[in-house]
Amino acid sequence: MSESKIDNRLWSSKARNLSPYVPGEQPQHDDLCKLNTNENPFPPSPKVGEAITKVLAQQADDLRLYPAPESEELRGALAALYNLDINQVFVGNGSDEVLALVFASFFLKNRPVLAPDISYSFYPVYANTFGIELVQIPLEADFSISPDAYRRPCSGIIIANPNAPTGLLLSLADIRKLAGEHSDSVIVIDEAYIDFAQLEEASAESQMSAISLINEFDNLLVTQTFSKSRSLAGLRVGMAFGNASLIEALTRMKNSFNSYPLDKLAQAGATASVLDVEYFEQTCQQVIDLRTSLTAELTALGYDVLPSHANFVFARPHDGAASQVAEVLREQGIIVRHFDKPRINEYLRITIGTPSQHERLINALKALQAVADVEAS
Amino acid sequence: MSESKIDNRLWSSKARNLSPYVPGEQPQHDDLCKLNTNENPFPPSPKVGEAITKVLAQQADDLRLYPAPESEELRGALAALYNLDINQVFVGNGSDEVLALVFASFFLKNRPVLAPDISYSFYPVYANTFGIELVQIPLEADFSISPDAYRRPCSGIIIANPNAPTGLLLSLADIRKLAGEHSDSVIVIDEAYIDFAQLEEASAESQMSAISLINEFDNLLVTQTFSKSRSLAGLRVGMAFGNASLIEALTRMKNSFNSYPLDKLAQAGATASVLDVEYFEQTCQQVIDLRTSLTAELTALGYDVLPSHANFVFARPHDGAASQVAEVLREQGIIVRHFDKPRINEYLRITIGTPSQHERLINALKALQAVADVEAS
Repeated sequence: MSESKIDNRLWSSKARNLSPYVPGEQPQHDDLCKLNTNENPFPPSPKVGEAITKVLAQQADDLRLYPAPESEELRGALAALYNLDINQVFVGNGSDEVLALVFASFFLKNRPVLAPDISYSFYPVYANTFGIELVQIPLEADFSISPDAYRRPCSGIIIANPNAPTGLLLSLADIRKLAGEHSDSVIVIDEAYIDFAQLEEASAESQMSAISLINEFDNLLVTQTFSKSRSLAGLRVGMAFGNASLIEALTRMKNSFNSYPLDKLAQAGATASVLDVEYFEQTCQQVIDLRTSLTAELTALGYDVLPSHANFVFARPHDGAASQVAEVLREQGIIVRHFDKPRINEYLRITIGTPSQHERLINALKALQAVADVEAS
Repeated sequence: MSESKIDNRLWSSKARNLSPYVPGEQPQHDDLCKLNTNENPFPPSPKVGEAITKVLAQQADDLRLYPAPESEELRGALAALYNLDINQVFVGNGSDEVLALVFASFFLKNRPVLAPDISYSFYPVYANTFGIELVQIPLEADFSISPDAYRRPCSGIIIANPNAPTGLLLSLADIRKLAGEHSDSVIVIDEAYIDFAQLEEASAESQMSAISLINEFDNLLVTQTFSKSRSLAGLRVGMAFGNASLIEALTRMKNSFNSYPLDKLAQAGATASVLDVEYFEQTCQQVIDLRTSLTAELTALGYDVLPSHANFVFARPHDGAASQVAEVLREQGIIVRHFDKPRINEYLRITIGTPSQHERLINALKALQAVADVEAS
C-alpha cells in the first residue's frame, strides 16, 4: 500500500513509526535459479517427512489438540545433541521470532545495543520495534569484526557469526573476549550459518559454535535456525542456547506474546531432523564442497571472493559493477542478492546452489564477460 | 522455575515485570477425558491431511524454501469465503499471535483499553506485555455484556463473542452500537467460538459474525481461529478481518517482529480446511447438537447451565461446589476447567466432547450425586 493512501488515524504511534523488515523476494514461477535467500539446495532429511506423516496418520487425536507449548521433545533432542540441559534450550517460530523475543528480554534498557553496521538487516528493525537505541559499529576495512570496537557501555551486543552478507567468521577467542568484557550485558551470537563453518583443522570443527562457551559465560546467548543447514526454511523453527536464567526470560516473554508458536508438525519434523545426524553432516559437507568449487570458479572469472563460512559467497566483480551483473542475471532468470548500501554495493551475495545451478550461473557470467571483452576491444 | 531461584540480573525491566499467560493443562497420558481446553472432539477435514501430504511429496522443492510471507493463498480463500477483499484479511500464528499484534498496533495509546472483567485471560497479559492500561468492565448480573458500560474514553475495546467462559452471545445490534459510539477507537470482536453460535431462526445464522459489519465500520476488527470450529489447534492459525488500513497496520507490525509466522504446512492445511465447507458445516452442527444434549443432561442433574453459543458449557452445580466436583472428576481422569475467581468460582467450564465422553462425564456426575444423596440421608 503506498504511503500516501494509508489512513493511519486509528494506529498506535508505535504502528505509525515502524520500519518493517523486507524479506528477500520469493518469486513463485518456475525455472528460476534462485540464489538470493540462502536456502539450502538439498531437501531436508527424509525422516522429516516420515515424522510429519506419522502425525497426520494420527490426526484425529493430534491436529485437533493444542501442541506442547514448551516443545519438550524438540528441546530435549537439541539438548542431547549439544550435551546441554533442556533448560538451556529455547525454541521459537524461526530464529526471527527468537531474536524478537531476545531484543525485548535483554536489550530494552537505558543503554544502546551494539551491532555491526553491515549485518542482518532485521536487527535495526527489532530495535525500532521495541524502541531500543541501536549503535552500529563499523566493520574493519577487511569486513572483519574487532571486539575492541565494542568496548563501550551497552545493554547488549548482537553479532551474526558467520556474519551476513560477508560470510566471515569471528573466532571463539574473540567471542570469549566480548563475553568476558561485558559481563553485565547479554552477548548474542546469531549462528544462523555456523554449521557451514569449517576450520582448516577438521578436528577443531565442533569448537566453532559458541554453544561450547555457554557453561562458562552466563551472559552468552547463541541463536540458531533450522532454515539453513537443516533445509527447513518452510517449517519455521529457530532456537537459542544459553544459561537457564536467560532461557527462562525468553520463555516468559514468549508466553506473554503467544504460548504455542510451534505447531505439531513443525515440532515433529524438527525433532526428526535433529535425530538424523548422518544426513545433516552429509548435506552440510556437500554445501561446503560446492562453496569451495564456486569460490574457485568465481575467482577464475576475476571475482574477489571473501573467505566464506556460510552457505553463500560474497563476491565482487573485478570492475565492481555488481548492480549491473545482478540485473543481467535477473533477465536470465538467475536471482542473486545485491545490497544498495555503502561499502558493499560492489558485491553480490550468491547462495550456494546445486551443481547445475552453479553451471548456469557461471555460464551466464562467462557470457557476460565475453560481451564486455568484445565491447572493450 | 521458582521465583526465588531466578537470577534475573541480565533481564530487561519489561522481562522482569511480565505476567505470562498460563495455558490450560495438556496432560499427555492416555484414557483421559479431556474437556478442559475447548478443542474440537472431531478431527479436522480429511482434506487438511491430503493438502499437507501433497506439500511433503514435493518437499525437495518446498520445505527447504521459505513460505509465502503474506500467505496470499490462505488469505484469498478466506476472502472468498466471507466475500471480502484479500486486503481485508490478515493471518497469523494462532489468534493469540494475531491478538498480540492487535494490542501493539491499536491499543498502545494514552488511554486505557476496555475489556470485560470475566473473559479470555490473555487480554490482561497482552496489556501488561505492551505497557497498556486495561480497565476491566464488570459483566452484568446475568453475565451479559452491556454496551452502555463501555461509554468512556478508551484506546479501544476488546470483547470475546461468544464470551469465554460464559458462552453468552452479544448481538450484532450491540456491536454496531459499540463501533458507532467509539468511532475513534478500534473495537475488536474476538470470535474464537462464533461458528458454534446459533440463533433460533436458522435463516439468521450467517448474520451472527461481526464480519458482516466491517464494510460499515472502519474501526471494527474481527478475529477468529482455526483452533476451535476447524479442529486445528495443533496447526496454529488465526486470522483478523477489517478495513484495509487496519490490516495494513497488523501486517507492518508482523513484519517488524517475524516475517514468516505461518509455515508451509500450516498454510496448505488451513487453506484446505477453508475450502471444505461441507465438512466444516457438518462438524459444527454436530458440536451444536451435542451441546444441546449435554445441556439437557446437566440440567436434569440440577445444574444451572448458561445458554451457550460456544463449544463448551458453563454450568453451576446446584450447591455451587464446582471446585470439589472438578477434583472428583479429575480423580476419574475427567478434566474440566474451574476458575478460582470471584463470581465464577461456583461454575465449571466443560468442553463439548464426543457422545462417549459425555456419557462418561454424566455417569461420573450421577455417581457423585448418588454418594451425596446417601450422605445427606
